[in-house]
Amino acid sequence: MNLYFDAAATTPLSEKALEAYIKTEREFFANPSSLHKEGVKAHKELERNRAEIADLISVPPASLFFTSGATESIAAVFSSFLLSTPGKVIISSIEHDAVSSWLRPLERSGWKTAMLKAKGGIVRKEDLEAELTSDTRLVAIMSVNNVTGAVENIKELVETVRSYEKGLKHRIFFFSDSVQALGKIPFDPVALGIDGASFSAHKINGPRGIGALYLRRPEAFTAIAPAGGQEKGKRGGTENLPAIAGFRAALGEWMDGAEERREHIKMLSNRIKDAINGLGFHILSPADASPYIISFASPLPSEVYTRMLSERGISVSSGSACSNNTKGEGERILLSMGIRSSEAKNAVRISLSNGSDSDGVDELIKAIKEIGHGR
Amino acid sequence: MNLYFDAAATTPLSEKALEAYIKTEREFFANPSSLHKEGVKAHKELERNRAEIADLISVPPASLFFTSGATESIAAVFSSFLLSTPGKVIISSIEHDAVSSWLRPLERSGWKTAMLKAKGGIVRKEDLEAELTSDTRLVAIMSVNNVTGAVENIKELVETVRSYEKGLKHRIFFFSDSVQALGKIPFDPVALGIDGASFSAHKINGPRGIGALYLRRPEAFTAIAPAGGQEKGKRGGTENLPAIAGFRAALGEWMDGAEERREHIKMLSNRIKDAINGLGFHILSPADASPYIISFASPLPSEVYTRMLSERGISVSSGSACSNNTKGEGERILLSMGIRSSEAKNAVRISLSNGSDSDGVDELIKAIKEIGHGR
Repeated sequence: MNLYFDAAATTPLSEKALEAYIKTEREFFANPSSLHKEGVKAHKELERNRAEIADLISVPPASLFFTSGATESIAAVFSSFLLSTPGKVIISSIEHDAVSSWLRPLERSGWKTAMLKAKGGIVRKEDLEAELTSDTRLVAIMSVNNVTGAVENIKELVETVRSYEKGLKHRIFFFSDSVQALGKIPFDPVALGIDGASFSAHKINGPRGIGALYLRRPEAFTAIAPAGGQEKGKRGGTENLPAIAGFRAALGEWMDGAEERREHIKMLSNRIKDAINGLGFHILSPADASPYIISFASPLPSEVYTRMLSERGISVSSGSACSNNTKGEGERILLSMGIRSSEAKNAVRISLSNGSDSDGVDELIKAIKEIGHGR
Repeated sequence: MNLYFDAAATTPLSEKALEAYIKTEREFFANPSSLHKEGVKAHKELERNRAEIADLISVPPASLFFTSGATESIAAVFSSFLLSTPGKVIISSIEHDAVSSWLRPLERSGWKTAMLKAKGGIVRKEDLEAELTSDTRLVAIMSVNNVTGAVENIKELVETVRSYEKGLKHRIFFFSDSVQALGKIPFDPVALGIDGASFSAHKINGPRGIGALYLRRPEAFTAIAPAGGQEKGKRGGTENLPAIAGFRAALGEWMDGAEERREHIKMLSNRIKDAINGLGFHILSPADASPYIISFASPLPSEVYTRMLSERGISVSSGSACSNNTKGEGERILLSMGIRSSEAKNAVRISLSNGSDSDGVDELIKAIKEIGHGR
């Protein structure tokens, strides 16, 4: 029985991913950048993994670069703009702090910034249209929100940008943080037309400390500092080959029968939603959100409610303070969606993974009913 | 028998480090930033590992921040200066590209830059003194050079900066990339008085993708973007707890009886040097270099010589092109030391680890003698 419902924060490493990590560490221990036989062997293994991961994400291998995680993928993109001609950057108000914390350094570099509201969790193309200006160079709108699971209309938003771009002499870089999309909703970066996307392995039972950056046009991308020149100069630092192999294994496992799995998660998710609705609590996630994430307004301050579940062995996240570090990030996101402050403060996030099971969901629902409306 | 002599590039993960990785992944799989019981448990484990690693490096726990590796530790420091008042940055000419590639972005931000030569591999305090100006804000000189093993006089260089600093209204940040120093020479960041240092786990049989940033005065350090706010805002991204535990285990193993181990490595190193000297080849490493690194001018272009050893199952690095990515980094470093171009092109780096053994060294020496002066 799995009582862990904080999969949007992290997931445990799968056995297959761990096996791949260990096997790769043993067989391909050399630095993939070394020129001797062992290094060449490791380099081939790196490229084999890249090709297979790219295939699973449906992007060309040459467009995929390994980083230490989504935060670093995001930093690679945003920092690459820091020293270029200042312009305007537009992000949504529901971005993760890994994205939104780049507004300040860009402002200090002379950039204009705009944040798009997201009524009900969804960024509207009209709001994006209204903010596009001739000096806009970067737009960042996440694919799936980490607090509510809201699935953004990326295709439509990209088309809005492409259409506006026609009148310009420069391109606009459309970035989409896609951490909560990978493996959890049908997701095709190439078809969406985005210029860049960030992925993380540890949200899909892969290892910590490994992620990827998709770049539609890598030839047009210059890292702020190439450092050791690894990853064709897009990301310096010794390639974390064992973790990359673990990422490959986890992603393969996750994508195997992905549609049926999603249906199963949707069923579990609907059962949880029914229980929450039955108690009269407001579900804060949009109706067509990712089934992996459910946010709702609990009857108690979210820290209290979360603790009560935690005392029953059930791990969920306080929707208002998603973590120790970024108190208020969740609340900021919920408020920007138009959620009332009283509800935002009581928000609780339940997040599922492919490891979620019926028994665990039964226990969660039982606990939610027992706690009821609290004292 | 260990025929791998490219330990300065990377080392295999030790059994103990792998065990710690797996155990920690299983027992503390939650996100250390999550507020539920599992998260709190993981957070405690994170801090326990931080305290133990800090103890092994002899720095206060609160001064140590985990990153994905030395490259990211260096980037954290250099990028933190990008948007501050431009001044002058001084680095040595023998820095790794992870450091030197930051000169260009700093120049684009209006910074003046200077590179200190390093005759014979050693940066002289007189050269540093000559470059210090009232607008100098950052000095970066590595502790141990990765191509030659040269041990820099960091204490003397820091004192030079501190003495100059007395006449200024601002402090000068003294950074020292210490990747090849950790565990390989007696090294005490606090006693040296440096303001920042970078470390990497995978050079001492720890996992890839984990490193640390030492900051003497963390309260005075502001990351360019705090992202998710982890590591007290110094480094965003989910904490890689299993890798941190692996780092802890590897460092503990490495430091256990470190002095005797170093004596053993010194003995192996001297045997290799004697063989090289016996053939009349010029040893490019300074006499008092780290025993873990020996560079010498082989009788053939380094790629050819390296391949000949590789064909015998022996892995060494081409000193002139340390990697696939940064062709010429090694050559740049050797030339800046005053090594003749003909010798730099033939440079070969032999690097040892605590896993190096007598039999492997016998085999290496045998191969060096067999190849002799080449065709």
